[in-house]
Amino acid sequence: MNHFAATPEPPYYAVIFTSTRTAGDHGYETMAETMLELASRQPGFLGFESARAAVGISVSYWADLESIRRWKHDVAHRKAQRRGREDWYLDYRVRIAKVEYDYSM
Amino acid sequence: MNHFAATPEPPYYAVIFTSTRTAGDHGYETMAETMLELASRQPGFLGFESARAAVGISVSYWADLESIRRWKHDVAHRKAQRRGREDWYLDYRVRIAKVEYDYSM
Repeated sequence: MNHFAATPEPPYYAVIFTSTRTAGDHGYETMAETMLELASRQPGFLGFESARAAVGISVSYWADLESIRRWKHDVAHRKAQRRGREDWYLDYRVRIAKVEYDYSM
Repeated sequence: MNHFAATPEPPYYAVIFTSTRTAGDHGYETMAETMLELASRQPGFLGFESARAAVGISVSYWADLESIRRWKHDVAHRKAQRRGREDWYLDYRVRIAKVEYDYSM
């Protein structure tokens, strides 16, 4: 499996989601998989990278701000966001950023 | 300890560094700490967030592109970058992105 998102030439957008979790799963892993599956079928979705230690960092990549806005307001995703605030996250930050250039090893 | 970078109001810049590691440490942890210490004293440095699972994601935040460019060309950092390519990383991606807006839980 390739852990790097196969993003196209910039410009494109990144949503940097940084979070700290509550203790225990509470259905989190299943929902996270479902949301990634659902996100990856949205128009404008380009890729996803994720890691967790003391803090979790997930970066999703999108073609444009409109795709990000549409996914944010998706009904199933809104339910997951609410559960996130209630059950899964102690705290989080969301940063929406325009990728201007990139390079590889 | 707060694991979230205390970034100011956007706009500012994010450098998203995604990597896969070689097996073993090879001096990586010590150098990573030294580089973070050094980066945090650079003009324009705003903060840092990092996590590693199958993939590692480190995001550093900067005031502007000039600060990022200057840090990229720092002599000690260039040595670390070379060791990174030779010893520590199987592969990596670097994405430079302008944070346009952000929000919290």
